[in-house]
This record gives sequence, C-alpha cells and structure tokens, in this order.
Amino acid sequence: MAEIDGARLLRDLQTLRGIGTYETGVHRPTFSAEDVEARHWFAAQLAEAGLAVEIDGIGNVIGRDPAPGRKLLIGSHLETQDHAGWLDGALGVAYGLEIARSLGGGIDVAAWADEEGHFGSFLGSRSFCGLVTEAEIDRCRNRAGLSLRDALQQAGFADRPRAMVDPARYRGYLEAHIEQGAELEDKALKIGVVTAIVGSRRWRIVFEGEQNHAGTTRMAVRKDAGVALVRFAAAIEDRFPGTASERTVWTTGNIRLEPGAPSIVPGRAEMVFQFRDTDPATLDRLTEALQGLAGEANQGPCRVTLVETGRTAPAAMDDGFQAALEAAAERRAAGQHQRMPSGAGHDAQVLAGRMRAGMLFVPSIGGISHHWAENTPDEDIVLGCRVLADAADALRVEA
Amino acid sequence: MAEIDGARLLRDLQTLRGIGTYETGVHRPTFSAEDVEARHWFAAQLAEAGLAVEIDGIGNVIGRDPAPGRKLLIGSHLETQDHAGWLDGALGVAYGLEIARSLGGGIDVAAWADEEGHFGSFLGSRSFCGLVTEAEIDRCRNRAGLSLRDALQQAGFADRPRAMVDPARYRGYLEAHIEQGAELEDKALKIGVVTAIVGSRRWRIVFEGEQNHAGTTRMAVRKDAGVALVRFAAAIEDRFPGTASERTVWTTGNIRLEPGAPSIVPGRAEMVFQFRDTDPATLDRLTEALQGLAGEANQGPCRVTLVETGRTAPAAMDDGFQAALEAAAERRAAGQHQRMPSGAGHDAQVLAGRMRAGMLFVPSIGGISHHWAENTPDEDIVLGCRVLADAADALRVEA
Repeated sequence: MAEIDGARLLRDLQTLRGIGTYETGVHRPTFSAEDVEARHWFAAQLAEAGLAVEIDGIGNVIGRDPAPGRKLLIGSHLETQDHAGWLDGALGVAYGLEIARSLGGGIDVAAWADEEGHFGSFLGSRSFCGLVTEAEIDRCRNRAGLSLRDALQQAGFADRPRAMVDPARYRGYLEAHIEQGAELEDKALKIGVVTAIVGSRRWRIVFEGEQNHAGTTRMAVRKDAGVALVRFAAAIEDRFPGTASERTVWTTGNIRLEPGAPSIVPGRAEMVFQFRDTDPATLDRLTEALQGLAGEANQGPCRVTLVETGRTAPAAMDDGFQAALEAAAERRAAGQHQRMPSGAGHDAQVLAGRMRAGMLFVPSIGGISHHWAENTPDEDIVLGCRVLADAADALRVEA
Repeated sequence: MAEIDGARLLRDLQTLRGIGTYETGVHRPTFSAEDVEARHWFAAQLAEAGLAVEIDGIGNVIGRDPAPGRKLLIGSHLETQDHAGWLDGALGVAYGLEIARSLGGGIDVAAWADEEGHFGSFLGSRSFCGLVTEAEIDRCRNRAGLSLRDALQQAGFADRPRAMVDPARYRGYLEAHIEQGAELEDKALKIGVVTAIVGSRRWRIVFEGEQNHAGTTRMAVRKDAGVALVRFAAAIEDRFPGTASERTVWTTGNIRLEPGAPSIVPGRAEMVFQFRDTDPATLDRLTEALQGLAGEANQGPCRVTLVETGRTAPAAMDDGFQAALEAAAERRAAGQHQRMPSGAGHDAQVLAGRMRAGMLFVPSIGGISHHWAENTPDEDIVLGCRVLADAADALRVEA
C-alpha cells in the first residue's frame, strides 16, 4: 500500500498558509492577488506531480492524470472566507495533491473556484458540472461591488474556456474537509465519514405593521411589526423541535426593525431565517410548519410574508464510497470514526449530481471555523490524508 | 374677552412652514440655516408685538412683556425632527405669539432650543431652568458629528449669556402641542387637557452567547444570542400587560444580531427598549418585572445584561392650570374635550420643575407625527388657540 508523505503534506499546507496570512489564519478571498498566487502555486505543484494542468475560465485549477483509463477526482477549494482559517478548503486540495503524488496514477485533482461564495454559490464546481450560465457570470459581484467578469479579467482567467465534466472519465469524486463543528472532538473521534450533505431552505420573513410614535400610540391600537417578528421568531423555537429531526438545524441570522429608532414603533421588520436537513421530507415538513406559523401570525395586527430566497437539495454520498472510507478509517484508526451528515455545504454536493461521491471529515479544534483561530492537530491532518489515500487507492481500481 | 386673530395665526404658521419646506412638512433641524432663520423671524414678530426680545446663548428665543408684574410664560419649540411636520413645536410658539399680541400684556413667550434633541435632551428649557452645565454643552454633538459649540458659533449665538428662569416673575407656564396620537380624533374630541407628562426608562439589553457555524453546530450545543433575545422580547409582551397600567406604553425600537450573517449563529445581540408611564410606582414595578425576566433568561445558555441608558421622571401638570384649561375648553367646545396624559415628552415637563405648568393638545389627523404628512385641520388649530388664550387670560390675573 502506497504511503503518503505526512511531512510534505504539512509543508504544502504551511506554504498555502503563507499566502495571505492573517493572524494564525488566512485572508484569501476569491480572485484577490493572494488567491490568484495560490492558484498558480497549486497548479505548479500539480504539474510537478506529473499531471496535465489547466486553470480554466472560472478559475478552477484542474490537474489530469495523462495516462489512459478512468480516474478518481479529488478536490476542494483554495480561497477562504474573510480573515478565516488556514484549513477550510486548503486541507482538501493539499490532500488531493499529496495523494496524486503518492499513488502515482489514477487521480485527477481540482481546486474549485469560489466555493466560499464571494461572487456566487459553488461557482467553480457548478461551472464544471455545466450548471453556470454566462448570464449568471454577468450578474455576479462580490461584496465590494467588483463584478466577476472584471475579477476574472484582472486574474488573467477571463479569456479561457471553462472546463466541463466528462462523467465517463470519472469513477467518482472524493473530498476531505475539516468538520467545522465539534462533534468529532467531543466524542474523541478522528474521522467522520459523511453520509449526506444537508439541503437548506433560506427565507426572508417580512412583517408589515404601522409606524408610530412610541409615546403617544396606545398599546391597544399598535400594529408593531417588531413585536410581530419577535413573537414569530420565538414561536419557531417552540414549534420546530416537534417537527424537526434530531439533526435538523435552524437559524435566525439577522433581524432588522424599521426605522430602528428608540422612540418609534417599528412599521416594518425583517428576519433572515434558514433551516438544514439531509432529508427532503423533513425540509418539506419544516416548510409547512413555517407556513403554518405565518398563517397564525397573519391573524394578528401585522401582515407576515415568507419569501424563499434560496434552497439547495440534500446530497447523499455514495454507499460504496462510504464503505471504502469507513474501511480505510477502521484500518488506520480503529474505533475512532463515525458516519455523520455534513451540516455545511461543500463542492461534493454539486459533484454528487454527476458522479459517485464521498466525503471525509477531520476534527476541528473547539469546532471553530470561518475564523482565523480555526485549527486541527497535525497528527489528525496526516491521519486524515492516510485514510483518504487508502480509500482512493481502493476506489481507483474498482469497477 | 380678548379674541385672537385666527387668520393671522394661520399666516404665521404658514410662514414658518415656508422656512425649510419639505414635501408638505418641514426639515428644520436645530441650528441649521433654516432653524436660525426661523429664530430670527420669530424674534422679530415678538418685538413687533411689543415684547423685549433676546436670543440667548443656547438659542432660546425669549420675548418678555416690559410692563411690571408677574407674567404667564407660553412656549414650545421651533426646530423640527428631520423631514417632519409643520406643526410639531411651531404650533405652540405661534400660539404664544398670537396670545401675547391679542391679550396685550402679562404674557412672556419662549421658543426653546432643541426640544427635538438633535444635540441634547430638552437643551433650551433645561438651560433656562439651570439644568445644563457648560461641560454638557462641551459634550453635545448632532448625528452628523457637529459639536454644539461649533453649531452655536455658526448660528451666531455662542458668545451670548444663557437666560435663566426667575421663578418669582412667573405665574406659570403654558404649552400647546399637537397630540401626536389619534385618541382625540378617534373620539371626535377637539381639546386634550394634559394631566401629566409620562416619565420614561430606557434600556439597552445585551445578550452574549457563542458565535458558530449555522450548519455544523447542533441545536443542543448552541448558545444563540439571537434566540435568547427573541425569547426575552416575546416574554416582555407576555408579562408587561399584567404589570403595566392601562396607559403604559413599551417599545422595542431596535434589534441587532451580531454578526448578522444568514449562516452564522449570532454570538451577541442587542435590543433597545423603553417604557413610559405617568406613575413613578408603575415605572418601578415595570423595572422590577424587566429585572425578573433578565434573571429568568440568565438561567439559559446566554448571558443577559440590562443597561439603563436614560430615564425621565413623570411631570404632573398643575391642578389649577388643568381646571382653567378645562373651563376654557368647555366654553369654546362644550363636551368636546377630555383630560389625558401626554405620552410624548415636552418642554413643559422641564418647566414644571420650576413653576406651575399646564398643557393643551389639539388633534393630529390620523395620529401622524414626526413625518411630513403630520397635520391638523385649520379650524382645530384656531380653536386650540382660542382655548389657550382664554385660559391664559384667566391665569394671568390669578393670584
């Protein structure tokens, strides 16, 4: 069995950590100078490993094994959230590089562009899977207002073709990622074998009442949109546990009262709400529960409107890939692994629509992620790569 | 009995409406060019009415009857909220001017600076009552960051003395104002005789939890500051009706979740909360209720802190002044008046600490205020001035 070089893997990760260092983490937003530098550096490593490399028209870095035969694709992403961690994304692409080098064949490697959504949603992997139109690219801008077209132009990727998946080429897709939660650490486990990536439904919930003077408007005649909102949000917390599954998560991420002044009864209020689960039926039940709450709230003095702002479907990981990952985990870390869903989105959920897919998690210290303090013990990083390499080794020769 | 000139009164109000016109209302923030123009115009009218006029070092316009003897002081304010109505403040000072002209003696008139709080809180009337220190003036800034010192300098008022009340001079203080609520209109009444001006307690309520990824953090381990906030705010709505009096009002004016992103469990949250009542004991009971709710909330996963950001004491209006206003109202509008508290703050609550005080309300169409659509029928404006003039006529000769 081929062995990966743990020290080389850690050196690669430290090199990436040096491109856009922020505190102990990294600030490397999509198509920033640092991100472009990281993509070129990574392309050079893939080429050195003997792969045929392209950076395509959306910024994907793809290294292809030039030998004939079906391949296993391993990938993740290179850009980071703002002022974020050194492993979110980088871990998975460094694993791909190290495994391609160590196994010596049968592996393609991809660093997908903009998984973190600075410009769009899973832009690189969706482009590769034929799910991004030129019109969508025309529309995308980052928070600073820079258009994706201009960013691609500045990065030097604008005039290149976008790579498209050839499903016949691939046996499947593997992705490793830090857990971004504390479950593995809490249970003293080393490896998570992902069963499915959750789907999400995202909402903007709008409450319309009547703006008034907070001193002169009696309680009995108020149509306070803020009160309608807090009652609604509290009712979600009371109702959802009875409808949700054990793994469902739901979050009110933002609330805005208008005009937001101390002495004015809010005439309008908005909340940003989402829920996630791996089971489409559960997502449907929660949608019905939310609509039910809105119906009840509309009996009150304010008007409540649910606006669905987005949804992603849950993506099941392939049974055979889960089995291969579990067998490798048991060999390398007996009894220190579990199957678990992914509560966060990953490129694997996009690739799963085109080929068999599997995902592996390594622990996150304290569950911290999307923050520069994000970290994983070196030995866990190396162990994760050994497990993924063993699974890849088994899967690259499978039928 | 002296009669006021209704047409002249309406012309004065229309003249003021022309200084800083915005839509059908007025934008005349404290010490803006328009506000300073309005103060000079008003001073000129008072002088023409035979009063000795000064604009003092805080911007108060004060006209004094030069004849010997005790006086009745009538006032309100000239500046407006941003993009607000033409009557809030202007009505009361125009009444003072018209009554001084009509009664021909015994009346002083004041336009207090910055009742609307662009720089401070009731700055002009509090200065007049000896409640504003030079240090407070040093600290005051408006929302644009302009210091009160610089604003006074630009207005040309900086090097003047601040006028101070001589309580021996005054029989008392009268102020008329639009209701800023819809109670008079709803009951088809023309005059409100104010019994007391509510006191208020103002709070910032802070919730501290733990910021986390909204996908990977299981519900059971979350410390969601936003959830703590909405449960707390909803509990206020459930509990306060049992503790409040019939006239108490309470308002959550603003809510902020941090960081406020759709996919991040809020680690910190804040709400701006206030309640108002005319009864100090009720304000104390509500404070205890709020503290009780905070104690209960602190049993949960997040830490709750109540920060009192300000309070004003309730101010009772003088019984004799109420009786004089009610008698005048009954004479001019039999059966079309009521006694009522003021839910909004007014300069009269400050003056009430130094002399007997009374307040009169005229209806606000639709209860609209602090908005350019604010209005009152012309006939109600004139009627209100007749009632105030009759009461002033009676009170100026009283012991």
